[in-house]
Amino acid sequence: MLCFTSDYIAGAHPEVLKRLNETNLETLPGYGSDRYCDSAAEKIRAACACPDAEVFFLVGGTQTNQIVIDTMLQPYEGVIAASTGHVNVHEAGAIEFSGHKVLSVESREGKLSADSVAKLCAGFYADGSHEHMVFPGMVYISFPTEYGTLYSLSELEAIAAVCRSYEMPLYIDGARLAYGLSGMGNDVTLPDIARLADVFYIGGTKCGALCGEAVVFTKHNAPKHFTTRMKQHGGLLAKGRVLGIQFDALFSNGLYDQIGAHALTLAARLKAMFAAKGYRLFIDSPTNQQFVILSNDKLEALSSLVACEVWEQYDSEHTVVRFATSWSTTAEELCELDKLL
Amino acid sequence: MLCFTSDYIAGAHPEVLKRLNETNLETLPGYGSDRYCDSAAEKIRAACACPDAEVFFLVGGTQTNQIVIDTMLQPYEGVIAASTGHVNVHEAGAIEFSGHKVLSVESREGKLSADSVAKLCAGFYADGSHEHMVFPGMVYISFPTEYGTLYSLSELEAIAAVCRSYEMPLYIDGARLAYGLSGMGNDVTLPDIARLADVFYIGGTKCGALCGEAVVFTKHNAPKHFTTRMKQHGGLLAKGRVLGIQFDALFSNGLYDQIGAHALTLAARLKAMFAAKGYRLFIDSPTNQQFVILSNDKLEALSSLVACEVWEQYDSEHTVVRFATSWSTTAEELCELDKLL
Amino acid sequence: MLCFTSDYIAGAHPEVLKRLNETNLETLPGYGSDRYCDSAAEKIRAACACPDAEVFFLVGGTQTNQIVIDTMLQPYEGVIAASTGHVNVHEAGAIEFSGHKVLSVESREGKLSADSVAKLCAGFYADGSHEHMVFPGMVYISFPTEYGTLYSLSELEAIAAVCRSYEMPLYIDGARLAYGLSGMGNDVTLPDIARLADVFYIGGTKCGALCGEAVVFTKHNAPKHFTTRMKQHGGLLAKGRVLGIQFDALFSNGLYDQIGAHALTLAARLKAMFAAKGYRLFIDSPTNQQFVILSNDKLEALSSLVACEVWEQYDSEHTVVRFATSWSTTAEELCELDKLL
Amino acid sequence: MLCFTSDYIAGAHPEVLKRLNETNLETLPGYGSDRYCDSAAEKIRAACACPDAEVFFLVGGTQTNQIVIDTMLQPYEGVIAASTGHVNVHEAGAIEFSGHKVLSVESREGKLSADSVAKLCAGFYADGSHEHMVFPGMVYISFPTEYGTLYSLSELEAIAAVCRSYEMPLYIDGARLAYGLSGMGNDVTLPDIARLADVFYIGGTKCGALCGEAVVFTKHNAPKHFTTRMKQHGGLLAKGRVLGIQFDALFSNGLYDQIGAHALTLAARLKAMFAAKGYRLFIDSPTNQQFVILSNDKLEALSSLVACEVWEQYDSEHTVVRFATSWSTTAEELCELDKLL
Repeated sequence: MLCFTSDYIAGAHPEVLKRLNETNLETLPGYGSDRYCDSAAEKIRAACACPDAEVFFLVGGTQTNQIVIDTMLQPYEGVIAASTGHVNVHEAGAIEFSGHKVLSVESREGKLSADSVAKLCAGFYADGSHEHMVFPGMVYISFPTEYGTLYSLSELEAIAAVCRSYEMPLYIDGARLAYGLSGMGNDVTLPDIARLADVFYIGGTKCGALCGEAVVFTKHNAPKHFTTRMKQHGGLLAKGRVLGIQFDALFSNGLYDQIGAHALTLAARLKAMFAAKGYRLFIDSPTNQQFVILSNDKLEALSSLVACEVWEQYDSEHTVVRFATSWSTTAEELCELDKLL
Repeated sequence: MLCFTSDYIAGAHPEVLKRLNETNLETLPGYGSDRYCDSAAEKIRAACACPDAEVFFLVGGTQTNQIVIDTMLQPYEGVIAASTGHVNVHEAGAIEFSGHKVLSVESREGKLSADSVAKLCAGFYADGSHEHMVFPGMVYISFPTEYGTLYSLSELEAIAAVCRSYEMPLYIDGARLAYGLSGMGNDVTLPDIARLADVFYIGGTKCGALCGEAVVFTKHNAPKHFTTRMKQHGGLLAKGRVLGIQFDALFSNGLYDQIGAHALTLAARLKAMFAAKGYRLFIDSPTNQQFVILSNDKLEALSSLVACEVWEQYDSEHTVVRFATSWSTTAEELCELDKLL
Repeated sequence: MLCFTSDYIAGAHPEVLKRLNETNLETLPGYGSDRYCDSAAEKIRAACACPDAEVFFLVGGTQTNQIVIDTMLQPYEGVIAASTGHVNVHEAGAIEFSGHKVLSVESREGKLSADSVAKLCAGFYADGSHEHMVFPGMVYISFPTEYGTLYSLSELEAIAAVCRSYEMPLYIDGARLAYGLSGMGNDVTLPDIARLADVFYIGGTKCGALCGEAVVFTKHNAPKHFTTRMKQHGGLLAKGRVLGIQFDALFSNGLYDQIGAHALTLAARLKAMFAAKGYRLFIDSPTNQQFVILSNDKLEALSSLVACEVWEQYDSEHTVVRFATSWSTTAEELCELDKLL
Repeated sequence: MLCFTSDYIAGAHPEVLKRLNETNLETLPGYGSDRYCDSAAEKIRAACACPDAEVFFLVGGTQTNQIVIDTMLQPYEGVIAASTGHVNVHEAGAIEFSGHKVLSVESREGKLSADSVAKLCAGFYADGSHEHMVFPGMVYISFPTEYGTLYSLSELEAIAAVCRSYEMPLYIDGARLAYGLSGMGNDVTLPDIARLADVFYIGGTKCGALCGEAVVFTKHNAPKHFTTRMKQHGGLLAKGRVLGIQFDALFSNGLYDQIGAHALTLAARLKAMFAAKGYRLFIDSPTNQQFVILSNDKLEALSSLVACEVWEQYDSEHTVVRFATSWSTTAEELCELDKLL
């Protein structure tokens, strides 16, 4: 059965797995102090054109969001996010578990606007009783968003400018960063991300690794004793090498870029296939997640042959479904899918 | 200067203060185990027509909301509240501080509807990924709401029915309960509240006490070791007598009702005064908080003579302001205000 | 029946209650912004000889300890305390509830020594894996201690010196401060406390108030947005006046000192009474709490006539009990007790 | 350079890595719902002779301790642990971060005694003010302990009996379980562990996996919505397969036992080597961690040739060091070490 449900349905990219095999019996120190973590960090700094960046490796996305947000915020602060943002909807309250409110803002196709952030902040500081309210302390955006959409460089610059004017860090969740950087029409580079964000993470889990996310603090602003805070949150991996080796591989020989490019080539083909067959798109996504409106009959007919993710009901007779490509998707799979549409 | 800014601008109702004076030198045990706490609880049970209710005394409203919500919810649950609800906006994140998300729902004049609660819950359970989301675990409403409005009995019954169908407790914040029960056109009684809510609190601070709120668990459902949880949250008063004596007074000789009736008589007069002078109301509030639209010029003119609370900007030339009455408001004050309008 | 169980068995000192009565109908703003809070703070600053001190009013002791410790510590830090310290034993885990470990140290009659604190810190920083441990971030002591004992000025200075050398704040819990300052042989003044501690609180609940504790930050070191943090912890009183008026009274006309002196005069008499009758003391306490070893037979015989607090079993035939005096204890009560011993 | 610093210095056992390679391109669902997780759980249930056990996979030890303890305790409860227990000392306050106190008890060579647990509980319930204290809610022990020692079957049974009498779950941290089950003189089997503990975890990270710990609830007592709680703590791995495949391999063909046996054979040889050369042991450890007293001169001489872990200062001229064996230690390494002693 064909499977397009998500971008984490396979193991690791073969190049990544190869490096885990090659290094397996090397004796290395623990907790991220090994040479592969160092090397991966150095390669990430180079790729970001941010020579002073502080890089840490965590295991998963929700864990990363919880730790970054909790450690960057003051206890009286909350994080501004799109109402559809992962931290607001799909992390089982991990942000609130660590004591912080998600200050949700209406979003459009998964995106926040600089204006809506500015409006929230202006309203907060204008309110005479704001000492009884949660202070806006950070802006969280995802690139790509949960709806596969991308911010343009000018949109990112506008959001970053609002953040600077209110002295709030801008945090970019890059769970699918590879697929954003290779996105159709994308004008944002990794150095742009590093320049505009105060902290962001480079997704490994969905972009070729078995697990792992690389957190990058770009402004000499890593929270004090960050390793201790990772430990306190249960996020410090004993065999930190597992993360270091994988990211070292992902950032060698342009692998991370290739992973993005491969998935996007196939996503563009997928999009064209659906268009050619007359299907409507729910969102015009420029990345590896494509949201298609299927009739319920068609969805039923496909269900035993193709796995995709039901996103939401469109109307009484149609359903929005998500098809995701990734580094592991093949051209052959698309051909087979095409025959079924 | 006249002052209508809130309903907590004076000390205690004279009858309440009298009892504190009379009992001052009595030797009593601590932490709520004194006979006045017992007596007050008994009188509250009678007033609620709920002979088995479990009654606890806390000091303030935000503290009460935090402790009740945290102890009634499972750790993976959040509380459904109106987007304008006190717990969502004006408690500095006290709910999130204790680990829970406020699941905010659009509201109308401060009120939730049964439909919106049902829709949120149905959507949650229909979502295939709801194990990655915050479970709806309780409904919070305030009676009266933060906008002075009231739920009708049928509205409350509808909300309670949704709560029962999803096995969620209904929690009613009664910070201003006296002013709701005496509200214009109100058809809800204290026994109704006790019957429909799983837990509610009877506000003391804003209704005649120096401080204090009485939490009432109506269904043999007080959380286990609730006193220990109060202590753990920093909410267990050593001289619990201070709360017991005050509530004993408030629930003797119909005082709590009189307090509500007095404030509402004056609120009705206030409302009529504004109407007579042609002012528009922002909300048609049936309780002790009246929201009036003043021109900015009028507001400026009044500012050195009358204190009221600026609520929000109405348009570029008008402002919404709140005038509150309480047990301590006098007919003379209204006469003086009338001359200034 | 005579009652010596604790120092919070009566209401407020008559002078304090008088002020509450006199001011009851005054119109005042909320949340600690009234003129009585200002006046009380000013008088406290003068009494502490600390003109720049920042003063805040909270309701109870556990609440105060939780809020002060949580807001003064970094999230990766714990608080050093005597193993018998109130925060370690009798606050239902309020410190851990806010995320911090109590780093308990063996104590002697309720007291920490500078050496034991220095040893803990030296050991921590010498440990190669201390990044996986809780950082010592503050020292908590109580004056008087939970066993009624007092630190001498030189002991306090030694502890403060260790704190300074490790850049940790020293926090002094003064729940019974009046009874410590008036303690037998005490050589520590309120200005000494203010000079040596980075933050401390002046107990109201046990020293003449209905409720209330005054937190004093002495080194321009109040945590940012402390009022918001109080609110977030459920500790910000709407009618802050209730605390301000009481502390204003306690710090007028030497009342706080008189309260301490009265209780200590009677405590000394109590101690002498027990000695004269041949009872042994469990601890040679210089303050208002006296710990006496009674035979179980004697304890049984007294039980219907005198209430005192069972502290711990001494041996199979004896029990340690606590007798506490306070501002409300009378010479007559001691005479009656004397007849029963 | 020879390395004996810990049991997590290499990657995965070759058999484990082989399975990750073989399954790498299989399409599998996420979050622990794949067939390898199912298969691993089934094999673990069989190995435990506990057919109804509920098995979950987490990534690391501190994360596992935090999630198990937080979800098994009521909010007013703490966990009893040896003062030297990992949760008390080396988890950066992860337990307190989730709101719970570690009730530490004096230990002997890393072990708790049933008597000390019984005494703590009896004292707690006998204390008249125990409602102001943290309730003992669980017993945590590690098998082997942090000092390499083991509980005998009768010791475990005694502790389990105390737990049952106080209706507290017994939780066994099996980070190094393989090395305990193969321990010298050990009389405890995996079915014994499953029978006596209410919950325990089988360590993967230190016993052959890249990462991963298998949590086993043995009494139909998995906390409600445990997957959601894992997610909320940031501990739910998207590619749960990474854990399932590894544990499936570890519990196939007796691999987990072989790993333990191999490490213990070499640990016994190591111990004999030290004894033959006249070195004293700090603790007579029956497991893979050996604690040896070296003169500081010898330690210095070895330092450029052999890596071991400095444990603590023994006296001014000696140091306690730890040598750990694991599945990756070779007989050749021991021979080389022998020449250097």
